[in-house]
Amino acid sequence: MSESSVRPRSLLACGLPLPPPPLPAPGALEQARLLVAPSLDAGLVRELERITGRRAEPLTDVPPPSDAPLFCVGDALPDALRTDRLLWFHSVNAGTDPLLAAGPWPASALLTRTVGRMGERIAQYVLGWMLAEAQSVPEFAEQHARAHWERLPSELVAGQTALIYGTGRIGAAVGRLLAACGVRTVGVARTTRYGPEPGTDRTVPPGFDRVIGASEDTEALGEARWVISTLPLTAATEGFFGAARLAAVRGSTFVNVGRGATVDLGALETALREGRVRRAVLDVLPVEPAAPEDPVWRLPRTVITSHSSGITTDEDVLGDFTAAWESVAAGRRPELTVDVVRGY
Amino acid sequence: MSESSVRPRSLLACGLPLPPPPLPAPGALEQARLLVAPSLDAGLVRELERITGRRAEPLTDVPPPSDAPLFCVGDALPDALRTDRLLWFHSVNAGTDPLLAAGPWPASALLTRTVGRMGERIAQYVLGWMLAEAQSVPEFAEQHARAHWERLPSELVAGQTALIYGTGRIGAAVGRLLAACGVRTVGVARTTRYGPEPGTDRTVPPGFDRVIGASEDTEALGEARWVISTLPLTAATEGFFGAARLAAVRGSTFVNVGRGATVDLGALETALREGRVRRAVLDVLPVEPAAPEDPVWRLPRTVITSHSSGITTDEDVLGDFTAAWESVAAGRRPELTVDVVRGY
Repeated sequence: MSESSVRPRSLLACGLPLPPPPLPAPGALEQARLLVAPSLDAGLVRELERITGRRAEPLTDVPPPSDAPLFCVGDALPDALRTDRLLWFHSVNAGTDPLLAAGPWPASALLTRTVGRMGERIAQYVLGWMLAEAQSVPEFAEQHARAHWERLPSELVAGQTALIYGTGRIGAAVGRLLAACGVRTVGVARTTRYGPEPGTDRTVPPGFDRVIGASEDTEALGEARWVISTLPLTAATEGFFGAARLAAVRGSTFVNVGRGATVDLGALETALREGRVRRAVLDVLPVEPAAPEDPVWRLPRTVITSHSSGITTDEDVLGDFTAAWESVAAGRRPELTVDVVRGY
Repeated sequence: MSESSVRPRSLLACGLPLPPPPLPAPGALEQARLLVAPSLDAGLVRELERITGRRAEPLTDVPPPSDAPLFCVGDALPDALRTDRLLWFHSVNAGTDPLLAAGPWPASALLTRTVGRMGERIAQYVLGWMLAEAQSVPEFAEQHARAHWERLPSELVAGQTALIYGTGRIGAAVGRLLAACGVRTVGVARTTRYGPEPGTDRTVPPGFDRVIGASEDTEALGEARWVISTLPLTAATEGFFGAARLAAVRGSTFVNVGRGATVDLGALETALREGRVRRAVLDVLPVEPAAPEDPVWRLPRTVITSHSSGITTDEDVLGDFTAAWESVAAGRRPELTVDVVRGY
């Protein structure tokens, strides 16, 4: 990474305005070479070639300098491609923070991402782990292993409250599914856009019983049985779940399907040891994969899964790339465009 | 149990008609003594005394013969009370097969049962175990125990098919919850009451995409990812899941929240060993509790839980008893009356 690079979070911190990335001109895109990550499945690559009408080249070997512009489908962008030759990068993942953090984003380049059925997947992950706890799944598995028949308590999640951080696509998908199970859902947004005040939107998005702002969550944290984070990693969310916020928790189970670095693990450990956080389910960690000696494995009453709640499939990549391709061809901004300043 | 007793299933087998049990006459109920199971919580007993306006006596000590009629709240009925002194028995459980199987049911006695929020509870149990499998909950717990970070596959239950045996309150509650997760739900009823033919009801109950009859389930068994039984134990359902029916399964996970004796465990073991049944989750067994040496613990890819999916709470008992009491007082048949011939 160049020392002089300006990273989006610095921009945000300084409040500097940044123009929205331009759409690739259809003429330029027609000339552009397609680079794809070598990890992509051959069948997916064939489909990308068919849709774009050109041969795919590996993203690792940057073609020699020429006037030909480039567009890419992959998960990581080599520094050599962070230039104004890059018209468009389509991420096979939903989270683009590693792409944005690894180097300066070329001002000329459109960034789009894959979401696919990720909302549904993450929602089923969250509900699966909630019900596993409510239904004592691990405890019954343990009893079974020693041929022991004993009644264990079960909990009805219907009527309980879940506080869901993030009210975008993922958070709303989680909210909708939990609401279907009778859970009371409170969304937490960056700002309270929902309310009766002038200039606010009175319509709370489907899946939430109500939405509050991130700065007014203390009381709700104390009342929630479940605290679920779907937050992306941005300058505003790094260490978001720190000592102050976790001090307000009163017996909630914490589920993180957002980004690992939004949680201060030291503060979480304290809250777990003090019993304020009942259990933790962490699909994401500040450093992944976690090495066997990582102290995170020793957090009490915690389960770590392997950043697997919101996988995107080849079908998802193809669907979302195709939609973006058609938008660009029609001169419209793709729905899954990433705001590189905001970071998601 | 008297040798000359006629048990309901014999009646069913002989096709003998049996008149519906009469409602207790309000005058008779006014005179009746209230007997309650000694296992009932003291707070619940106080509430029952308040509602019925009399002192409760223990169900174990049958009052000396007199003309005073009796009504009971409990889980088991001593033989000495299976007489025409008994006006009404309210079961604190939903399943009344042990009550009916333990002795002849006095023709004069109304039998009502507790359902409470059991439908919701069982539905959350079923979904919890489905999602635990789809999300690899036990496998992640095992990986966590050895500080091992590795991606595991997850499955989206949305779009999969669940075959749900039993289309009553419990089956419908399961269907509604699974449908909310995007699962295609096919109900299996004793008879196809739903269809376009004259005399059938065209309205498929909420929670089911369609309903088929138990005699036409072969194809559906082959297509289902999940086979869920909520069947009660009756003459018609004993050994219902036997070799013939299980032979039609092609990779389904089998979840039993109905009654243990509806399953032929030998046939289930064969189907598990042959891989036709992928996994089994058994909340109910023919013999409960299962002793440590019971071979059922050694069924492959099976988890046994302790008849805990559909517990009824004191709140449930009180709510359903109160509704039945009010119905009887108004001369109406309580909604939760058990048909002692049909067995549920």
